[in-house]
Amino acid sequence: MRQGAEKLHLEKKITAAIQGELGAYSQQAVYSFFCRENVKQVVPLPTLQRVFSLLSQRNSPDFAVVPIENSLAGSVGETIDLLISKSVRVVGETSIPIRHCLIIHSNTTRGKIRRVMSHPQALAQCREYLDRNCKNWEQVSMYDTAGSVKMIKEQKLMDTAGIASELAAEIYGMKLLKKGIEDDPTNTTRFVVIEDEAGKNKSISSEPTGDDKTSAIFATKHEPGCLVNALSVLSSKGINLNRIESRPFRGRPWEYYFYVDFSGHIKDEKIRNAVEELRGKVEELKILGSYRRQV
Amino acid sequence: MRQGAEKLHLEKKITAAIQGELGAYSQQAVYSFFCRENVKQVVPLPTLQRVFSLLSQRNSPDFAVVPIENSLAGSVGETIDLLISKSVRVVGETSIPIRHCLIIHSNTTRGKIRRVMSHPQALAQCREYLDRNCKNWEQVSMYDTAGSVKMIKEQKLMDTAGIASELAAEIYGMKLLKKGIEDDPTNTTRFVVIEDEAGKNKSISSEPTGDDKTSAIFATKHEPGCLVNALSVLSSKGINLNRIESRPFRGRPWEYYFYVDFSGHIKDEKIRNAVEELRGKVEELKILGSYRRQV
Repeated sequence: MRQGAEKLHLEKKITAAIQGELGAYSQQAVYSFFCRENVKQVVPLPTLQRVFSLLSQRNSPDFAVVPIENSLAGSVGETIDLLISKSVRVVGETSIPIRHCLIIHSNTTRGKIRRVMSHPQALAQCREYLDRNCKNWEQVSMYDTAGSVKMIKEQKLMDTAGIASELAAEIYGMKLLKKGIEDDPTNTTRFVVIEDEAGKNKSISSEPTGDDKTSAIFATKHEPGCLVNALSVLSSKGINLNRIESRPFRGRPWEYYFYVDFSGHIKDEKIRNAVEELRGKVEELKILGSYRRQV
Repeated sequence: MRQGAEKLHLEKKITAAIQGELGAYSQQAVYSFFCRENVKQVVPLPTLQRVFSLLSQRNSPDFAVVPIENSLAGSVGETIDLLISKSVRVVGETSIPIRHCLIIHSNTTRGKIRRVMSHPQALAQCREYLDRNCKNWEQVSMYDTAGSVKMIKEQKLMDTAGIASELAAEIYGMKLLKKGIEDDPTNTTRFVVIEDEAGKNKSISSEPTGDDKTSAIFATKHEPGCLVNALSVLSSKGINLNRIESRPFRGRPWEYYFYVDFSGHIKDEKIRNAVEELRGKVEELKILGSYRRQV
């Protein structure tokens, strides 16, 4: 996270939906963006699809915090596809280092452990540590990192370690054996904070802060040079493109949507003018939101 | 596949590596690019990493055919990362429609089937068909589509159907119950044909055909406007960008490599000049190859 990033202090308590079990890295991201004491409840859901769908329902959580890219694995395509298809607004961002921890039942000891469970990606990201220190342990794939710690607790598994966040050890009251067992310490995930487009929630200011980012999605006309023409609108006005990602257009093979993050706030005159010009050069344009830069 | 795409007729027989079991969609892609009678052997390997590594070894297969993007799921990030890190050349492309088939043991009948096995993505892509026609079947996730048919054969599973390519039914001598059970008929995968950069193999001409594509990878300097500056080199010369994809730069969070496909052949003067100009505007540039456009 860049210098000066700070948590959001709120007047009232909020609820936030995440994908994954309680203790998932997404919950850490919730506490990285909001002050922990402002978070009344975190609502865990099994899929990103369910997270996005829930936001538009009555009595839904105020926000959702969803992963959008990882510094090793790249974009989370499913999140971008849902930002394209669902009526949500991006109101903030945060990033957290992925610090994998080796976690065991509070009533067992390292010497009794014979296997290790986690999401296959987490197991792969700790391969060097496991090869060096846990050579004879069986490796078992799970649907979720925090889910492995939950299972160790619920099934009282005394011979099994999980790999998950420090928060998972805390939430399930399990023993943290070792913190930071990932092979690559630069492993970082960026999350966006979203709310329903109807925007019943006004706890996050949408006013410019002086250092903002805008996220947008557009589809270019299917003609030569269209992407460069669209991006030139930004560069010719000195607007910095922070990120561009393409996603397939459903039902139209080899046509694409582009997701972009650029510097500035939609309420700045320069950005407003650029967006109007961009609208004339692309087939579809959706401004997802402007928010304080944190990454 | 566009009009006029045609298979490559060769003087000599070749060998090709694929990721997945024999009968995988990648093997269909091999036969879509090469004439089947020119293919001496298809070498199945469990991971893309192994496919790329094998190419540079002695007595390796002549080519590999690897998926690079799917019209529903988007880019295959692992393939792009391997194109960045390994010394290979792209010598061609092909695309095939993903026609999922319901396949059972040749000694059983539909009435005896109680479960269906396949890769989770294939099961998800046939959900509507399965919900309508196979309501009470248990769904079991497998590591591979063709692998499910291989297992039905090897373990003589009379109560189990697999979902895989038509080729898998043929190769394992199993019964094709129903072809084209995917929910979305536009589901298409594009593959690239690669060889070792040392290029011992000369069976594919690298001369311009008049309708070619060039694939390249570059990293921009970490300065505002760099991506647009780089892409403008192409557009200002009337060179059409067919595809752009970003991938994370390992160890440098939020910096990216860009993979691009553009129209033209590196032996065309216009393209050669553009590439020289591009080289001056980016931090790193690797031309992966020029080849006849098929998609």
